[in-house]
Amino acid sequence: MTDFAATKALFHLPEGMIYLDGNSLGPLPLAAAERVRGVIADEWGEMLITGWNKAGWMEQPTRVGDRIGRLIGAEPGHVVMGDTLSIKVYQALASALEMRPERRVILSDSGNFPSDLYMAEGLIATLGRGLELRVVAPEDVAAHITDEVAVTLLTEVDYRTGRKHDMADLTARAHAAGALTIWDLAHSAGALPVDLAGCGADFAVGCTYKYINGGPGAPAFIYVAPRHADAARPALSGWLGHEAPFAFDTAYRPGTGVERMRVGTPPVLALAALEAALDIWDMTTMQDVRESSIALSERFLKGVEASCPMLTLASPRDAAQRGSQVSFRFENGYAAIQALIARGVIGDFRAPDIMRFGFTPLFIDETDVGSAINIIADVMNNQRWDKPEFKTRARVT
Amino acid sequence: MTDFAATKALFHLPEGMIYLDGNSLGPLPLAAAERVRGVIADEWGEMLITGWNKAGWMEQPTRVGDRIGRLIGAEPGHVVMGDTLSIKVYQALASALEMRPERRVILSDSGNFPSDLYMAEGLIATLGRGLELRVVAPEDVAAHITDEVAVTLLTEVDYRTGRKHDMADLTARAHAAGALTIWDLAHSAGALPVDLAGCGADFAVGCTYKYINGGPGAPAFIYVAPRHADAARPALSGWLGHEAPFAFDTAYRPGTGVERMRVGTPPVLALAALEAALDIWDMTTMQDVRESSIALSERFLKGVEASCPMLTLASPRDAAQRGSQVSFRFENGYAAIQALIARGVIGDFRAPDIMRFGFTPLFIDETDVGSAINIIADVMNNQRWDKPEFKTRARVT
Repeated sequence: MTDFAATKALFHLPEGMIYLDGNSLGPLPLAAAERVRGVIADEWGEMLITGWNKAGWMEQPTRVGDRIGRLIGAEPGHVVMGDTLSIKVYQALASALEMRPERRVILSDSGNFPSDLYMAEGLIATLGRGLELRVVAPEDVAAHITDEVAVTLLTEVDYRTGRKHDMADLTARAHAAGALTIWDLAHSAGALPVDLAGCGADFAVGCTYKYINGGPGAPAFIYVAPRHADAARPALSGWLGHEAPFAFDTAYRPGTGVERMRVGTPPVLALAALEAALDIWDMTTMQDVRESSIALSERFLKGVEASCPMLTLASPRDAAQRGSQVSFRFENGYAAIQALIARGVIGDFRAPDIMRFGFTPLFIDETDVGSAINIIADVMNNQRWDKPEFKTRARVT
Repeated sequence: MTDFAATKALFHLPEGMIYLDGNSLGPLPLAAAERVRGVIADEWGEMLITGWNKAGWMEQPTRVGDRIGRLIGAEPGHVVMGDTLSIKVYQALASALEMRPERRVILSDSGNFPSDLYMAEGLIATLGRGLELRVVAPEDVAAHITDEVAVTLLTEVDYRTGRKHDMADLTARAHAAGALTIWDLAHSAGALPVDLAGCGADFAVGCTYKYINGGPGAPAFIYVAPRHADAARPALSGWLGHEAPFAFDTAYRPGTGVERMRVGTPPVLALAALEAALDIWDMTTMQDVRESSIALSERFLKGVEASCPMLTLASPRDAAQRGSQVSFRFENGYAAIQALIARGVIGDFRAPDIMRFGFTPLFIDETDVGSAINIIADVMNNQRWDKPEFKTRARVT
């Protein structure tokens, strides 16, 4: 079993704060500051341009990709880092649509993160060949996987409710209907075991600033199944996805496998912070994380429900149907979250009425959960959220 | 006049190194390490998710964009940071092509950086409507601006030879022919005065890890002329380019002006390093930089030509026709550059035979140039490059 007290000791957690928002932005791994300092001073500062070779910057996107790959059940050598999750969605979707030229439906659901839908909209407008983004309710996805569907574009875990799709089942259904699958793992990677290879997923994408703890704006990743990796055409065909970037040919030839999904110069400093975060992941397994996450979430859910009758559970009650978060609906959810933040319990609000709390065993323990329940009970039962300062909305939460 | 001794003192330059490669990766501004440390420890570490508001991370891409804008003659509020240069090329090109739906030619030249051509190829294949990427010799661009051309996609300064296009003239010709212009400023921003507004450029893109000194993998920028900013459709329509990202609407509505060219979560750590680099730029003007760059380049060019008859000038002889680099052709250029690096003179090699040296007044002075000339003369005239260890090619130079 993982020593989660040991992993918790490797994070900076502000005094008096119970951080139940690692599903939005993970906290600072203590080693990240020193790692980035080293890359800045010893690599950028001393090696300058030779850092691309000497410090291994050029291979960093695939080296780090493999460390992410271990957490999501990818075959080694089939994950690469870079860009943002939205860009990676576009790459996967453009490739998948070309592999099903005779089909015209992209199937998604209303629980998908909006940016995935926006990127699909943008690609459809760019392609201009009568494609349709069909957005159904999450529970209706299976029934809508028909032979019209070119590709399913689904986020495994709903960012608002934590509702989890059955990746194996939906992937099998998609394949049976001749469709491809793109799985957005934003709320899965580092949250629960993912078995991309076992499920036969075609494409997967995700970010690393949430459960992985890579820091604000940490780079995204993309997975392309081995069977597609040398066939998928990269729509965003940048020089670092070229077979021989430093030949400076004027014509594009895609690189080998997932390397072709690289685009421009890799974000070296951000990848360094991420590598420090991944060192902590080497101390655990996704099975241990899941077991602890469920224990923490169940205790939280039951404790809050028992003490706060005004809150309505928005997440599935069955832990097996949830990711690693618990959400409640409350009409004054925005103010309630602000009041909780003022008391040191950090959750977040998602419009229109969702109060969202993430459970991250690497740095949240039973004591934290117990304290959070008590504070939430006090804030909710004594209407401590009902103050003007908690009701004024900032632009971002 | 700028105090370039003062700016030089603000960089870390390794002992004994003459760094003539700031046109590839700028050196470390001393303040960058501390700036990034502060963002990591005091913002990410202490503020966590609230850093998006409290630390101003969300506005960082436009705040930094305006500081870049000053260096390239952009109107305030019309430059935004993010992604990589290749991604920004794709965005600009996709928008421009939609604004000229009846035209089918993208005009570029063989001196353009390959990734720009690759991104255009990728977009053409994605669009699948018979577009043509017409690549002509740099000196033939003007003659090829016809009413077939939808958009010109040109890098102002050639990455190999330093040959500089006349941006004002070519932009005027493009407009006279009804075409739009995209200017890649990779080797212009921080290298020489650019007057986007004065030239009436339509779109411009660039990177910040070269002359700007933002660090390895520093983010790119995009400029959209005010007259197009609220009309250009973002093909890469990510959530942070949405009019109201935190409304989490399922349908995309583009944000105001250049903000719509934002895609995903901004790279906060990388932008922090870049901000430290930009503080040094506040100490100078592009006019002063240009004047000093020409003085340094002219001295170098004449000194090397006088002492190294085996080198053939690859750059324009007229300083007004050059960017801020001087290149020579030499059959054994790869080995020669390696031998120079071993002697502390850092230039770089670009296939097939270009030896490239960049002049960056913020940290290179007359003494450096004099020393570099002497070392180059010794290495070339005594064939010190003719050793096996200098001839073995590493994957990246």
